[in-house]
Amino acid sequence: MNTPTSQFTIGVDLGGTNTVFGIVDKDGNILCEDSIKTQSYPYIADFIDASIECLKPLIAQAGGIEAISGMGIGAPNGNLNTGCLIAPPNLPWKGSTPLAQLFAERLATTYPTFNHSAFHVRLTNDANAAAMGEMKFGAARGMKDFVLITLGTGVGSGIVANGQMVVGHDGLAGELGHIRVLTPLPPRLCSCGRQGCLETYCSARGIVQTAVDLLASTSQQSLLRNIPGAELSTYEIYKAARQDDEIALRTFAVTGEILGSACADFTTVSSPEAFIFFGGPMKAHEFIMPSIVKSYKENVLNIYTDMPQFLISELMDKNVAVLGAASL
Amino acid sequence: MNTPTSQFTIGVDLGGTNTVFGIVDKDGNILCEDSIKTQSYPYIADFIDASIECLKPLIAQAGGIEAISGMGIGAPNGNLNTGCLIAPPNLPWKGSTPLAQLFAERLATTYPTFNHSAFHVRLTNDANAAAMGEMKFGAARGMKDFVLITLGTGVGSGIVANGQMVVGHDGLAGELGHIRVLTPLPPRLCSCGRQGCLETYCSARGIVQTAVDLLASTSQQSLLRNIPGAELSTYEIYKAARQDDEIALRTFAVTGEILGSACADFTTVSSPEAFIFFGGPMKAHEFIMPSIVKSYKENVLNIYTDMPQFLISELMDKNVAVLGAASL
Repeated sequence: MNTPTSQFTIGVDLGGTNTVFGIVDKDGNILCEDSIKTQSYPYIADFIDASIECLKPLIAQAGGIEAISGMGIGAPNGNLNTGCLIAPPNLPWKGSTPLAQLFAERLATTYPTFNHSAFHVRLTNDANAAAMGEMKFGAARGMKDFVLITLGTGVGSGIVANGQMVVGHDGLAGELGHIRVLTPLPPRLCSCGRQGCLETYCSARGIVQTAVDLLASTSQQSLLRNIPGAELSTYEIYKAARQDDEIALRTFAVTGEILGSACADFTTVSSPEAFIFFGGPMKAHEFIMPSIVKSYKENVLNIYTDMPQFLISELMDKNVAVLGAASL
Repeated sequence: MNTPTSQFTIGVDLGGTNTVFGIVDKDGNILCEDSIKTQSYPYIADFIDASIECLKPLIAQAGGIEAISGMGIGAPNGNLNTGCLIAPPNLPWKGSTPLAQLFAERLATTYPTFNHSAFHVRLTNDANAAAMGEMKFGAARGMKDFVLITLGTGVGSGIVANGQMVVGHDGLAGELGHIRVLTPLPPRLCSCGRQGCLETYCSARGIVQTAVDLLASTSQQSLLRNIPGAELSTYEIYKAARQDDEIALRTFAVTGEILGSACADFTTVSSPEAFIFFGGPMKAHEFIMPSIVKSYKENVLNIYTDMPQFLISELMDKNVAVLGAASL
């Protein structure tokens, strides 16, 4: 019986800029949501306080804590096995932070009369959460083997094999952004301290860097030359590409080449039914995707004659990480 | 009840040189085995004929076909989903060969009075079969997330995540040998037609090539200079390394560096509890393994503080692929 105590879950998308809280129903509809600025809280205790204050009216709107069956959090370097955040480079808290436990404890003191024994708080990697969302509510419905690749501040990934998330022995698997790739471009230093990670070329920052490098390599005219360096973004490059700007088009083509080549190698690992792409830069999918597919075909091992699908997330306009986290 | 009809299985290790048939009991003991030369049969029908002739006395020794519950085959490019061999580069049969079906049909005509409805013939990738063997009978007992890497004519791999083989959407996943890797060495042409695959450096042939390249790069004395090129093998390099030959030692060190770096990147994918190495060149594990571990530590993303185990197969002296195939 679908009792009022299990109608909703809380999904949390903890990102480098914003932390978004959503109340999600069983069909993947977001009843209500709100957010706080992640970087405003250098101390984790203050972050938890602010999160609870943000959540209270949302929980009230859902009909009270009794209407909520659990809470899922997607965060960079979130560890499903331990519930801890492990030294996330783009977040203010260093070392290992037992985030799931901190939330569970604060919810227990905030709602002392509620029976919390059946209420679970689960944490996972943000990209894994997005993959869960895609599998439950999006482009990967019915798939058992697929890879979700998120392009954003970094490049994340969620890998599903045999219908299950691959989280690995320590709960930290699925970081394709930190596979070092062969490219025609010079190796770039990654925020992780290593060189040549996929993320250095295909994150939003990496794509902008490619545009900057291309601009520097030629005196060719480009709309991008009119944009001050600090304001150059994948969105500006996208707008220029829509006006047939050659440097902008070449930037997305190079991005797609590197992604397609990485997908080709990744096929030798898990041979997925689909690669699903998500994130701001994929607004430019009309320019990136053909290049991904072309490069994949040129680079894949010849036994993989059965082409995977290359898809855009179906949840780009919704908050897939909130949905995915809620489905934890 | 353990009836006589289910005491044994047939395990088949179909390799580029030999095809080994073994009768295996439930504890992983090989009751008896025999082999044929794979390359002697350019036509698949002749290969099946020879296989059945080789199997007949083994089956008789097991107490007849009634004592055998099924047959598992491990072969390069073996597809678990379809039972077909897909254009294996080191085998004589081109295109797609429905090997599981061919064996099932020939067994049915060879033993017409036997009820074949419960007798299954299953095929998988040779490295996947080895991983199954390792999980059931060897170094990976009790593990849910590990990677088996086989060094031989090529470099193969079997990936287990969440306790299940990762075979992918098309049954062909787990070909880490064809991930293209960053190395200090010049890119080498792979038998697959691509450049810089792990296999070109870390297969038996790749290791010999490294020794040849090192010999050509210096006039330093080496025991390996006394060996005619065609006779140079990983075993000869191993013998020289045991006599402190610097080129031989350097050859294994470089091999380990490339493997360790590849394992470091692969940890970002499935974060395994262990990497298990198998195959002829690992006889030299005393020289290769320390270099693998050192290179892994130098190259792994810093969130993976929980070191995986680097293990040698426990089934090196047994036929792990026969055991694994039997456990299919």
